[in-house]
Amino acid sequence: MERSVNGGPRLVAIGGDAAGMSAASQARRIGPGELEILAVERGPVTSYAACGLPYLVAKTVPSPEDLIVRDPKTFEQDFAIRVHTRTEATDIDLQGQRVHTVDASGREREEPYDFLMIATGGVPRRPELPGDRAEGIFGVQTLEDGVRLRDYLDEHRPRHAVVVGAGYIGLEMAEAFLTRKIEVTVLEAGPEPMGTLDEEMGALVRETMVCMGADFRPWTRAIGFETDRGRVSAVVTEDSSYPAEVVVLGLGARPNSDLARSAGLRIGPTGGIAVDRRMRTSQENVWAAGDCVETFHRVSREPVAIALGTHANRQGRVAGTNIGGGYASFGGVVGTAVTRICGLEVGRTGLNEAEARAAGFEFESVTVDSTTRAGYFPGARPITVRLLAERRTGRLLGGQIVGGEGAAKRVDVLATALWNEMGVEEVAGMDLSYAPPFSPTWDPVLIAARRLAERAY
Amino acid sequence: MERSVNGGPRLVAIGGDAAGMSAASQARRIGPGELEILAVERGPVTSYAACGLPYLVAKTVPSPEDLIVRDPKTFEQDFAIRVHTRTEATDIDLQGQRVHTVDASGREREEPYDFLMIATGGVPRRPELPGDRAEGIFGVQTLEDGVRLRDYLDEHRPRHAVVVGAGYIGLEMAEAFLTRKIEVTVLEAGPEPMGTLDEEMGALVRETMVCMGADFRPWTRAIGFETDRGRVSAVVTEDSSYPAEVVVLGLGARPNSDLARSAGLRIGPTGGIAVDRRMRTSQENVWAAGDCVETFHRVSREPVAIALGTHANRQGRVAGTNIGGGYASFGGVVGTAVTRICGLEVGRTGLNEAEARAAGFEFESVTVDSTTRAGYFPGARPITVRLLAERRTGRLLGGQIVGGEGAAKRVDVLATALWNEMGVEEVAGMDLSYAPPFSPTWDPVLIAARRLAERAY
Repeated sequence: MERSVNGGPRLVAIGGDAAGMSAASQARRIGPGELEILAVERGPVTSYAACGLPYLVAKTVPSPEDLIVRDPKTFEQDFAIRVHTRTEATDIDLQGQRVHTVDASGREREEPYDFLMIATGGVPRRPELPGDRAEGIFGVQTLEDGVRLRDYLDEHRPRHAVVVGAGYIGLEMAEAFLTRKIEVTVLEAGPEPMGTLDEEMGALVRETMVCMGADFRPWTRAIGFETDRGRVSAVVTEDSSYPAEVVVLGLGARPNSDLARSAGLRIGPTGGIAVDRRMRTSQENVWAAGDCVETFHRVSREPVAIALGTHANRQGRVAGTNIGGGYASFGGVVGTAVTRICGLEVGRTGLNEAEARAAGFEFESVTVDSTTRAGYFPGARPITVRLLAERRTGRLLGGQIVGGEGAAKRVDVLATALWNEMGVEEVAGMDLSYAPPFSPTWDPVLIAARRLAERAY
Repeated sequence: MERSVNGGPRLVAIGGDAAGMSAASQARRIGPGELEILAVERGPVTSYAACGLPYLVAKTVPSPEDLIVRDPKTFEQDFAIRVHTRTEATDIDLQGQRVHTVDASGREREEPYDFLMIATGGVPRRPELPGDRAEGIFGVQTLEDGVRLRDYLDEHRPRHAVVVGAGYIGLEMAEAFLTRKIEVTVLEAGPEPMGTLDEEMGALVRETMVCMGADFRPWTRAIGFETDRGRVSAVVTEDSSYPAEVVVLGLGARPNSDLARSAGLRIGPTGGIAVDRRMRTSQENVWAAGDCVETFHRVSREPVAIALGTHANRQGRVAGTNIGGGYASFGGVVGTAVTRICGLEVGRTGLNEAEARAAGFEFESVTVDSTTRAGYFPGARPITVRLLAERRTGRLLGGQIVGGEGAAKRVDVLATALWNEMGVEEVAGMDLSYAPPFSPTWDPVLIAARRLAERAY
């Protein structure tokens, strides 16, 4: 901490959501008292639960305020962190240690820093297509997106919705539409929903969705939009067109690393900002975390860019600890994700077949059907567990779980096993909990590991 | 496989429940086709789900048949395993490789063996007290016990029950009485229910039980029973007496190793049969598994005797694999257990405070209150996570979880972490799943690990 603006060193965080504010708060907690902290946020709010947006649209969550973890005022009062909202960072001068910002009224400022935290998040993938500026076409990335969509539904009461892309957010939005009694068609470029699952597991998700009333179209790509007086009226595909008074684009996001790239920071092969395990960029006093960075996948041992709030929070905290003068390192990820679609729980971790193949593994796999509780116990629901293990070493490579209540969180056991590079023979022998309200005598995860151990070695 | 009775070698299993039948079935699966298998079972049935007994008594599970996993006929037909039920093994001749048995009609036999599998289970602790032969006093170990208790409740419609001992089975039985609208008093020699939890966690269980209508009496020991015409009418303690038309004794069990001891097999310090990691006893061709053996605790590194169906199944399978000529080893236990009491989920794994102290560890602990889902998400319930870690190394020593739906199975993550001897700093950094229906952004387990990491090192 070499330099100071008004007595203490100064941290500027670009981005006031999960990663940026975790870093800022943590730097405040453990850093020197005289550390001055400014966060610059493009949007109007800080630290909100983006994963809750589908539930806001569905009205399962009543108010946008419910999703705000901490507002700028709280950061100011409780953490002595100043937040400039509706302010965009447009340029970073690494040599001069200054960030150029522009606020909503066009006022420009030069913000000097001793430590810079880059948490610029992701950019939703939104292909340029004819008609894509029409009213009624939404992304669902920011809290504002969610509020605007919800208001739009309240105002226009559409009867048909189309969701483009059947990943997590796409399916969660499809469920939100169903909850609001809006007919929904989901268009997916691949064969099944949830491309991060192997096909047979994705098929289970599709069956449930369709059963709940959604119309699912595989191998279907949007190529444009029909509009009626400036408002969307249909999604056009190569073969057909799907009537829609409202459209949600759920095509994922890429790291928003443009600002970092322009400044001259190193960008990795995934397009995310390259960082070390302490979340430091290629520049000594510049740190980055969240959807804008790439991280280390512990199973494939390759860099990956995964846009998830959990990673953003944890990486932000690691960066903040290091900025504050402590020591923390980010151990990487194993690709864990979970969701609930139309009452069906879905969890995955590690590598799926395609990923395992891409990483050069030869593997065996097994898929096991069981129940979430003892078969005789009331409330027992089907659960399907799919595991992959490397040939000969038997090392667990990945797991996918689909099933009723209590199914998905079991993926955490697999995530922990992956973290420790366990083999499936040893996984099968672990001392996991059993009681009739929680699992059959052999937990489905253990059954799957056991079966896989019989063929992997 | 040296010797043969009628062409092939012969396996005799003593005990036809989890461990014995797992071993027998597994030996059949992987052993030579000519292997002859006989199982000798004292009771009338094989392979039943003992953990389901409280739910049978509560009538949550309608029929005793629901709890029978496989009956003797199925073993005979599908596995070519002969079962002699209502037959007791009274003596083992290790030199002569023979088991002496007596059936219900008093007929004695000498059963020669090449391989012997001992799975004699546990003996319920039942102190000799004045009046303890009265009608209406039940243990709940066997399926017959459960059926007799259920019939007794149906016939006599008691209004007051007393449960002696507030461990898992005691509390599950107390809940069964409440479900059947029978008033219940639970007497416990210690300060709180569930002595395998630390006191503050046990207190949460007590609060819920009391809230549901159970009367809990800590520091209270039964010293006898009052009877009325041969039937129990009250439980007498040092200070008082508690009216009871039915009594359940839930004082745990000790390894039933008497037969093995008489035969000259090595018995360990816990009173369980000593076995190696392949489940072999001190005699080359004699194996043992289940409640009658002692096993290795991976955290304390000491022998323990833990009566649990999951261990019995897994150990039995390991023994069966080895008997059949394969290779399998039992990796030990970490002390995982789970239950649900009056809707409250309770899980524990590893060492509690007393156990950690006894094992010579100095430790730090932390207790964290959080929610099972995102706080704003419908159905979020309180969850309390308590963790212990060794001083300086930060190694996780144990975890306890109490809370609403979805709480307890999280203990499996901790069990997996313990299995791998993880430190809490690394646990806190793991890639566990998050979505609003499943956890707050930081899973309660991770929050607890993070807080503990701040003080353990």
